[in-house]
Amino acid sequence: MRHIPLIVLGVGGVGRALLRHIIANRDFHAARFGLRLQIVALVDSTGAVVEPQGLQDETLQEIEQAKAQGTPLVETPYGYHASDARAIVDVAGTDGAIVVDCTASDAVIPALELALERGYGAVLANKKPLTGSMALFRRLTGSGRLRYETTVGAGTPMIATLESLIRSGDAVRRIRGIFSGTLGYLMSELQSDRPFSVAVRQAYQMGYTEPDPRDDLGGMDVARKALILARMLGWGLELDDVAVEPLFPPDMAEGSVDAFLAGLTVLDKAFAQRVEEAHGQGCTLRYVAEIADGRCSVGLQSVPMDSPLGRLRGSDNLAEFHTRWYSPSPLVIQGRGAGVEATAAGVLSDIVALAQRG
Amino acid sequence: MRHIPLIVLGVGGVGRALLRHIIANRDFHAARFGLRLQIVALVDSTGAVVEPQGLQDETLQEIEQAKAQGTPLVETPYGYHASDARAIVDVAGTDGAIVVDCTASDAVIPALELALERGYGAVLANKKPLTGSMALFRRLTGSGRLRYETTVGAGTPMIATLESLIRSGDAVRRIRGIFSGTLGYLMSELQSDRPFSVAVRQAYQMGYTEPDPRDDLGGMDVARKALILARMLGWGLELDDVAVEPLFPPDMAEGSVDAFLAGLTVLDKAFAQRVEEAHGQGCTLRYVAEIADGRCSVGLQSVPMDSPLGRLRGSDNLAEFHTRWYSPSPLVIQGRGAGVEATAAGVLSDIVALAQRG
Repeated sequence: MRHIPLIVLGVGGVGRALLRHIIANRDFHAARFGLRLQIVALVDSTGAVVEPQGLQDETLQEIEQAKAQGTPLVETPYGYHASDARAIVDVAGTDGAIVVDCTASDAVIPALELALERGYGAVLANKKPLTGSMALFRRLTGSGRLRYETTVGAGTPMIATLESLIRSGDAVRRIRGIFSGTLGYLMSELQSDRPFSVAVRQAYQMGYTEPDPRDDLGGMDVARKALILARMLGWGLELDDVAVEPLFPPDMAEGSVDAFLAGLTVLDKAFAQRVEEAHGQGCTLRYVAEIADGRCSVGLQSVPMDSPLGRLRGSDNLAEFHTRWYSPSPLVIQGRGAGVEATAAGVLSDIVALAQRG
Repeated sequence: MRHIPLIVLGVGGVGRALLRHIIANRDFHAARFGLRLQIVALVDSTGAVVEPQGLQDETLQEIEQAKAQGTPLVETPYGYHASDARAIVDVAGTDGAIVVDCTASDAVIPALELALERGYGAVLANKKPLTGSMALFRRLTGSGRLRYETTVGAGTPMIATLESLIRSGDAVRRIRGIFSGTLGYLMSELQSDRPFSVAVRQAYQMGYTEPDPRDDLGGMDVARKALILARMLGWGLELDDVAVEPLFPPDMAEGSVDAFLAGLTVLDKAFAQRVEEAHGQGCTLRYVAEIADGRCSVGLQSVPMDSPLGRLRGSDNLAEFHTRWYSPSPLVIQGRGAGVEATAAGVLSDIVALAQRG
């Protein structure tokens, strides 16, 4: 049995689901891969829990439940104050360790860099480190010990598929994708002639959007995903280079969420018109990331109803890879692109893949 | 620059395309991965070419062209008689070597077993070694140094996706797939009301089928693919356990290809009826591999026209993975599932993935 020390940064929804999946799969991972994943440190924005021998499953469950109830790590019986993830990696890291980033923060970048310098593996669910400077992207991915499948399309194998195409020397000419379950849901609702303001409010009330729905509607999350794919192709783009079409005008960017939701009705007519125009041409509206000709753009597109993008319903994600060998029909990956359980499963898969190499 | 010694078994369509892709990607693989793939041996059923320092690209091109014109390796200026691939692996293998099986033969199994015993990597485009005994499947895949992406769906990432789901501990409940471009093409033709006999003859004349189209229509190739997926799930099935529905009756299994093609018209009426019945229910016929509940079956199914399987046209392959996290919508992979160029690209991707781990 090989023991793999894990340092988990971020104990929010995905981090907690990851703890549950690790515990639930202990027997399976032992039998199938001869692996035991040992959590030697957990870190949130308030503090850390460190146990060089690996935290017991009972302790992990207790911490998972405390965090689910909103208790910060520092206030659990096992936690101590720590504001520097890098220091935890320095202290808790040992040979063969894997640092797992389930945060959505820039603050963990020094911790990730230290981990890779030390020869540890790293798994990211966090898009921020890969969408900072191109130089940082090159340092992180150049290590060959970083996996980040869930940064695009959650557990669906969009990153792995692109890596595989690149290894094969196939010429990737164009990638088109729907990379937001929330915006996918909105587009399906618009297609069913629901007013834009009603669809957004509904998505907000059902918890499909971020706490501030402008974080979805602004398109920046999709832009980060497009940028990651473009950089994998070797294109030296920065986040500012991605052309982003937000789904609301600049004057609505400020103010409270309630005021924003109330004000959305002014957009209904324009959206209804665009939907009708698209329908008139056998098309439907989609919020599409387009990566082609050295450029990235994300925004509304009118796509044929019977194309892979046009047939998509609900909140599934989808990527089309148009390449030398996948032409005229693209290689298509489709599936649930969000959700803490599917994302945590993708993170766990990345961890095991790194552990198998070690 | 890391040099990776390759021993290539089989220099038919896929093997020759692989040589071309390796040569064409030399600069790219060096710049991106710091790798140089050195072919130290080529083997066909007649003989071998061995060069411990790695064959020059000019020599590889010369051999590739000779093979394309039907010259056996033994008759090229570089070849010598050899009937035992295992002996070639024994002689030409060195640390870090990868044995690449582009044959469609059982005869290479001892060579693959020796390679894995020695700690070499192995890449299979050949389904036979993985669809022999379950014990052999376990020995080959248990090494952790075998890749076989192209055995199902050519270069599309069906194997990698299933591996990723398994690593994550997700519960894979059901896989449904269309794994034959030839049969996919036939089903599209039937859907367009073309008589079965006409569609088969056309596919045969365009070179879409094997030299004996019964090798496609019998369903065994699809059955092997289904068996590989089922075995990855840990199910102890043998090839005989797969329920296979051939597209012709047993009394047409014997005799010449011409007689078979001429006799097909007797089946037209029955096929037309099944197509019509399916259409009446909003469905269409597909040749489906179904892996669920510990069992595999391959055969005709009537599937809803607006399902992923029903929407498929032409010769693309498609796999739906129904799992705990991918439910009710499955994870779907779709793309060109055949062709020597796409298959060779998939083989090359597997080679580079193994080399990166080394």
